[in-house]
Amino acid sequence: MKIITSKYILILILFYYFSMTGHKNKKKTKYEIKDYNIQNCNLKEVLHQMSESGGFESVNLSDGITILQKMIEEPNCTKFLSFVGAIISTAIRGIIKDMVKRNMFNCIITTCGALDHDIARSFANYYPGDFNIDDYHLKKKNIHRLGNIFIPVENYGPLIETKIQEYLNEFYKENKQFACYEFIDYIGSKLGETSFLYWAHKNKIPVIVPGIVDGAVGSQIWLFYQNHKDMSLDILKDQTKLSDIIFEAKKTGALMLGGGISKHHTLWWNQFRDGLDYAVYITTANEWDGSLSGAEVKEAISWNKLRADARQVTIHGEITTLLPFLYSSLNSPSSR
Amino acid sequence: MKIITSKYILILILFYYFSMTGHKNKKKTKYEIKDYNIQNCNLKEVLHQMSESGGFESVNLSDGITILQKMIEEPNCTKFLSFVGAIISTAIRGIIKDMVKRNMFNCIITTCGALDHDIARSFANYYPGDFNIDDYHLKKKNIHRLGNIFIPVENYGPLIETKIQEYLNEFYKENKQFACYEFIDYIGSKLGETSFLYWAHKNKIPVIVPGIVDGAVGSQIWLFYQNHKDMSLDILKDQTKLSDIIFEAKKTGALMLGGGISKHHTLWWNQFRDGLDYAVYITTANEWDGSLSGAEVKEAISWNKLRADARQVTIHGEITTLLPFLYSSLNSPSSR
Amino acid sequence: MKIITSKYILILILFYYFSMTGHKNKKKTKYEIKDYNIQNCNLKEVLHQMSESGGFESVNLSDGITILQKMIEEPNCTKFLSFVGAIISTAIRGIIKDMVKRNMFNCIITTCGALDHDIARSFANYYPGDFNIDDYHLKKKNIHRLGNIFIPVENYGPLIETKIQEYLNEFYKENKQFACYEFIDYIGSKLGETSFLYWAHKNKIPVIVPGIVDGAVGSQIWLFYQNHKDMSLDILKDQTKLSDIIFEAKKTGALMLGGGISKHHTLWWNQFRDGLDYAVYITTANEWDGSLSGAEVKEAISWNKLRADARQVTIHGEITTLLPFLYSSLNSPSSR
Amino acid sequence: MKIITSKYILILILFYYFSMTGHKNKKKTKYEIKDYNIQNCNLKEVLHQMSESGGFESVNLSDGITILQKMIEEPNCTKFLSFVGAIISTAIRGIIKDMVKRNMFNCIITTCGALDHDIARSFANYYPGDFNIDDYHLKKKNIHRLGNIFIPVENYGPLIETKIQEYLNEFYKENKQFACYEFIDYIGSKLGETSFLYWAHKNKIPVIVPGIVDGAVGSQIWLFYQNHKDMSLDILKDQTKLSDIIFEAKKTGALMLGGGISKHHTLWWNQFRDGLDYAVYITTANEWDGSLSGAEVKEAISWNKLRADARQVTIHGEITTLLPFLYSSLNSPSSR
Repeated sequence: MKIITSKYILILILFYYFSMTGHKNKKKTKYEIKDYNIQNCNLKEVLHQMSESGGFESVNLSDGITILQKMIEEPNCTKFLSFVGAIISTAIRGIIKDMVKRNMFNCIITTCGALDHDIARSFANYYPGDFNIDDYHLKKKNIHRLGNIFIPVENYGPLIETKIQEYLNEFYKENKQFACYEFIDYIGSKLGETSFLYWAHKNKIPVIVPGIVDGAVGSQIWLFYQNHKDMSLDILKDQTKLSDIIFEAKKTGALMLGGGISKHHTLWWNQFRDGLDYAVYITTANEWDGSLSGAEVKEAISWNKLRADARQVTIHGEITTLLPFLYSSLNSPSSR
Repeated sequence: MKIITSKYILILILFYYFSMTGHKNKKKTKYEIKDYNIQNCNLKEVLHQMSESGGFESVNLSDGITILQKMIEEPNCTKFLSFVGAIISTAIRGIIKDMVKRNMFNCIITTCGALDHDIARSFANYYPGDFNIDDYHLKKKNIHRLGNIFIPVENYGPLIETKIQEYLNEFYKENKQFACYEFIDYIGSKLGETSFLYWAHKNKIPVIVPGIVDGAVGSQIWLFYQNHKDMSLDILKDQTKLSDIIFEAKKTGALMLGGGISKHHTLWWNQFRDGLDYAVYITTANEWDGSLSGAEVKEAISWNKLRADARQVTIHGEITTLLPFLYSSLNSPSSR
Repeated sequence: MKIITSKYILILILFYYFSMTGHKNKKKTKYEIKDYNIQNCNLKEVLHQMSESGGFESVNLSDGITILQKMIEEPNCTKFLSFVGAIISTAIRGIIKDMVKRNMFNCIITTCGALDHDIARSFANYYPGDFNIDDYHLKKKNIHRLGNIFIPVENYGPLIETKIQEYLNEFYKENKQFACYEFIDYIGSKLGETSFLYWAHKNKIPVIVPGIVDGAVGSQIWLFYQNHKDMSLDILKDQTKLSDIIFEAKKTGALMLGGGISKHHTLWWNQFRDGLDYAVYITTANEWDGSLSGAEVKEAISWNKLRADARQVTIHGEITTLLPFLYSSLNSPSSR
Repeated sequence: MKIITSKYILILILFYYFSMTGHKNKKKTKYEIKDYNIQNCNLKEVLHQMSESGGFESVNLSDGITILQKMIEEPNCTKFLSFVGAIISTAIRGIIKDMVKRNMFNCIITTCGALDHDIARSFANYYPGDFNIDDYHLKKKNIHRLGNIFIPVENYGPLIETKIQEYLNEFYKENKQFACYEFIDYIGSKLGETSFLYWAHKNKIPVIVPGIVDGAVGSQIWLFYQNHKDMSLDILKDQTKLSDIIFEAKKTGALMLGGGISKHHTLWWNQFRDGLDYAVYITTANEWDGSLSGAEVKEAISWNKLRADARQVTIHGEITTLLPFLYSSLNSPSSR
């Protein structure tokens, strides 16, 4: 196959012209870079000046805020929030919870780890730790290490086991066959106001976990199933839910925090409606290794997962240092 | 909670002593670094000298080969191979296929993308591409971009749809309720000798895909289900399969290629037998962002997913540049 | 050589005990992680809550602000600011200029590129650009690309040539042999208030450029020298200046923005006084490749470049997204 | 300034056409990706198959070997080798030494650290170490840590001091004013056959260190100068040497191992002859942060540092894991 052949050259030129002038979300280059003047400025002013900072990732962060603000104000836009599980072990959980509480998103796509940490932290504490501690030493002290976070064993596995077995016992009475999002909604109904699952339940926002079996909640469902073989977990029903959301949407947008399955699933389903209209992606991964996590959002255009004229940006950075600034600067539709 | 209190100090000292002398897989430091002398050397000699190269990642690559060799020679060890899907779009698929054909592993844990690419490439071609091409231009030419790989649309989605619908039509006649690994085994039976799924089928090696719905095969199963509501996908049965494998194992080991759900699921299940005995992990991700993908394998010790005395190494590097050298240097048990 | 021998074990235990309890700048772990509550908060409140966020890099950013605040308030501390040249092409130049104007540092260590961009941007503009543009196309349009910044050729090389030849012609009349910092000070005297070199000159803060020949200013000095062979550039005099600064210091501290020669030279000279007392380092580089840029600041303890009891932190992140928040939150001694 | 205006559109289209068809070093895309078949293959065969592997970094590694082979066989090409200092602390020093011994390069550009480690390791040993050791503990044991390499204090600073003071005492008798490369050549004459400086001396290959003062050798020169004020270090003479090399060259090429000042200085001087004809760059740094270290080689086209039609590649990877394979597979001109 010749990807580029002479007979396509003219078409290519026209497309190139088109893409340069109309279809790409190009930064305008008529304004010069302006140095910061932000001594003791407030957050909004810092972020305002960031939009004219020129480079390097600052302009992407600034674009991200603009796109996200526009997206959450767009009434006819179905909004997806996807995130990796690890951040729920940090204070970022408070921001996720707030965004869900404020109805900024219509659908959540995440991992089983996010459920595990939300449940565990609803009842027990996690602690600041250290990356450089000896893991064997921690094991002997019954402490799990998640990066630089310490999790006492009793605040995690045994606690989640007790809760999930209890919830399943109740839930199972009425539900022999159920989608993941249905049981997750039930979990949310049992948790307190610090939980993002609680607010997802309150606000009727489905939480989709395509890899539900990969974590503590999934393992507990499997364990329960050992003694309740008439129960079945219908993950295809979760897909039907996503399908309904996607095909009803007039426009769609996504804030994707981190890569892996939660990012991919968000993009994946949006291909069936010819792509997202808005996309903001924060990642620490690199493009050059070919990974989905490292792929810039714009790659999704070639997969029909992102519209060619979408407002989109990839912010190369770490979620826990950037999201607090990004979130604090947003006006919610209700607060304006 | 005080993580470190005075009453634990003595215990801590003893543990530290213990960990320094017996439990950690410490590199011996009695030999000095020896400069390479490898002009026109063969691969084995290069790798042999690498073991005394001192730093930086070379010693981890060298350790990885040693550990992997020992692992595949260990008769009482159940071996896991986990990998991300993207590498199956590259020539690395040939190495994965070979390793499965040669029975080097007893269980595969991967993503839906790996299935998709294995099926697509069994019937059609992928092409070398470019990271820096305009994605809108590619879209107009009906080409998907996966990093620097170009995939003609017709060689991917429509092809996989045709095949999976055909396979499901056949498979469904005898199987109304099935585990993912069962249908994946059936897929393997339909593919040719270039396919890793074919050899997994031939060699009765289960292929576990914890996030089956996240990709083309998953979407096709869901599509089929729309018109065959008596069909059900029993992902808990996949977990039972894993449980059987784990609880029958005398020892376990894993080669983990890349992070995300395939790495996590491999580690996750090994916690239920107090951890892996061997672990080799290749990753481009960074530890400092707290991600599971970036976490060094040793973090798993604190989660009981890796034994404190396991032979383990994290190789920071990119799979497509390192695995060919690593694989070529291995002796298979049968070849010795 | 045996690094760890039995006869050292007791000493090692004592040192370990000492290091765990007194000498390391350990985070206290008695407080639990607290979720953010920052809807529409101001910057100070966001950063305040960040200190209890647990992970992952957020706690390092928070520590960095605390350490930096303490350092700039310490009257008996000689403060170093080191940075890579590229950031002077962005709006970050305004922050560097402010910090120098406000006398927050006593010595600057940087690269020739920083001089080049400070001079160029004193007289001409740089523009927001794009990473993904064709470089051959830019070349034909006489535009240099620096990451995602566009620099018209005439605003860079020819401009710097004109200015430096003019300054040297003047400076040379009185100075046949001179240190780099002396000529840099002279350059500063010719620039305007947007320039960090101007304020370094005003505030008599030496600017040390250990690799002066590697850039436009260095090349222009060399060019001038071709026709003025009685001129000589005395880089050893720059070292004497650094020596004076180091040996007069009671305490020292450093904010290091990026790696390479500017970071290394800052650490290097501080070894001669047994190490920095304060150190904040921001980097995107990885530890695992053995690079100086990727090395965490704590590695410097083993080189006597950082005191064992120093207040220090390595922030893994990108300067243009983090420094604006960090800087805006600082109180200058004068502003309190 | 309008970067893209309507009046340039036609020119732009023509340039784009030109750049797509003639000027870029495009990979041909007519061949499909071929899976590896490399069980127990030798190194050449692995690398041969890598050229058709499709992605991700493997094709860059393969290109790198092809370009480097062509470059070293080109008789009318002046070849530069640039590298960071840290790798000389590893076994990679043996490869650097070999390449210099075999006259594969005509000019070396490196850092002071490279000199320091080459001298130190000519007389004493470095040892395999560990990234995760407590640095305070190492300091107490008089061990420096360089990533995962341990350097006994006595094998580094004091040793280099003794040697350099001795060499300077001799050299100074005949040379009161000298270029860095002249003294470096003298150092080479005093070292043994394991040293790359020795072979640079033997083969009359100049070693240029633009940041000479940033390291042990530089500090020792400064120290000597304190008592020998009639001595002067003429770094502009090093620039004249580079100028001579550049302006005499018919073609130029460079293998650049790592970023920072050694990469930049290599590119910098090649702008004065309208750019390199060959360039192979290995780096772990990321493009997105705007750093020179992370910049792909192709960025240099817009700076006139690389010809638009140059054979060039950026290999994202770590030197100690990739260079041994790359080097072993090269045929030297003399060996063919």
